[in-house]
Amino acid sequence: MKSIYPTEYALTPEMRIIVELSIVPLGEGTSVSNILAYAIKELEKKGVKYELTPMCTVFETDSVEEALNIVKAAHEAVFKQGVKRTVTTVKLDDRRDAERSMRSKVDSLKKAVEKL
Amino acid sequence: MKSIYPTEYALTPEMRIIVELSIVPLGEGTSVSNILAYAIKELEKKGVKYELTPMCTVFETDSVEEALNIVKAAHEAVFKQGVKRTVTTVKLDDRRDAERSMRSKVDSLKKAVEKL
Amino acid sequence: MKSIYPTEYALTPEMRIIVELSIVPLGEGTSVSNILAYAIKELEKKGVKYELTPMCTVFETDSVEEALNIVKAAHEAVFKQGVKRTVTTVKLDDRRDAERSMRSKVDSLKKAVEKL
Amino acid sequence: MKSIYPTEYALTPEMRIIVELSIVPLGEGTSVSNILAYAIKELEKKGVKYELTPMCTVFETDSVEEALNIVKAAHEAVFKQGVKRTVTTVKLDDRRDAERSMRSKVDSLKKAVEKL
Repeated sequence: MKSIYPTEYALTPEMRIIVELSIVPLGEGTSVSNILAYAIKELEKKGVKYELTPMCTVFETDSVEEALNIVKAAHEAVFKQGVKRTVTTVKLDDRRDAERSMRSKVDSLKKAVEKL
Repeated sequence: MKSIYPTEYALTPEMRIIVELSIVPLGEGTSVSNILAYAIKELEKKGVKYELTPMCTVFETDSVEEALNIVKAAHEAVFKQGVKRTVTTVKLDDRRDAERSMRSKVDSLKKAVEKL
Repeated sequence: MKSIYPTEYALTPEMRIIVELSIVPLGEGTSVSNILAYAIKELEKKGVKYELTPMCTVFETDSVEEALNIVKAAHEAVFKQGVKRTVTTVKLDDRRDAERSMRSKVDSLKKAVEKL
Repeated sequence: MKSIYPTEYALTPEMRIIVELSIVPLGEGTSVSNILAYAIKELEKKGVKYELTPMCTVFETDSVEEALNIVKAAHEAVFKQGVKRTVTTVKLDDRRDAERSMRSKVDSLKKAVEKL
């Protein structure tokens, strides 16, 4: 299997909410990494455990409130760069019947694929 | 930076369409890895270069048509397991003014974050 | 129900943030309207101007913070019904260079289509 | 325009796949209705029953293949206007244990809300 997973967060305590964040700035040209970097920097400032993927940033938190506060900070960081409009997408995977983490979720799927 | 990126696809030719796929089966309990594994297996059968993330699967193709054919195969693979309903989300990042890949997209954002 | 069709929000003051909300409960069968109704009820309790569509609920607010508070309330209302897991998707269309509303956005697109 | 408000699709035969489509063009300024109109026009040319909402366009089809062909046509219509990059999001609600339509889905949720 060619896919990847993050050995970096092996010691993460099992947390509940896994969040996908994607911010698309309009009217800023077709290359937007330099702008999006400010959103990611905000996650770093807050000590959020995150993963960059080619389509979104994924992070984990232990409450919905914390998740949304982080989203708000990242979203505002982009506007502080002078951006006039964004389409910001947030997906919360909130599961309350089992402990898991970003890592365990990927591991679980990988194992299931290997069994087939 | 704690984030990750895929050293595994260093030699990938630069391709155009980067696709995010997420399939959520309804009515199959709260643990769905065993079902989703069939969708991923479909990507493997087709030789698609993909990355599993905690929230979605990301892959790259060189045309919209190919992207959608892969999505269709993965989506149908889930229904073949007896699933009665899914919410399947597909996001296409289609850029026609620059060559890039899943890897170069992540690298570009990482570099921009490091400069801040 | 205070919601839905465009003529009903003719007098809306022009507000900034337009929000799309979709909550998918896992493990609750394939028919989930009875559960999602509690999320919508939360919007009504808060006096939020919203529109039901076949795929999502759309509402408008005058700040990101208010938008996220409403999302949180709707999301929690679903868990209060005993749901164990949801995938909750939120999309914020935040535009700061022009006043507009849910209604003006649709009108603007309709007019552009008619011109073709 | 053949689209939009629920009373207009009262006679629709009950179909299976309900599709949400959103196309965000990058690098084209913050006002993009004039571009997106070409995507909607494509739906009209194909005789697709659709609904414009403030955040997305929703349509219904009777197969996944047809749904994806329509998405492809709408997506390409935007590139034909000279756009260089889009983030195009497609959500398929595919339910195989019950007949329903865009209209019946909204009606069902409205009724559930009224009962609370």
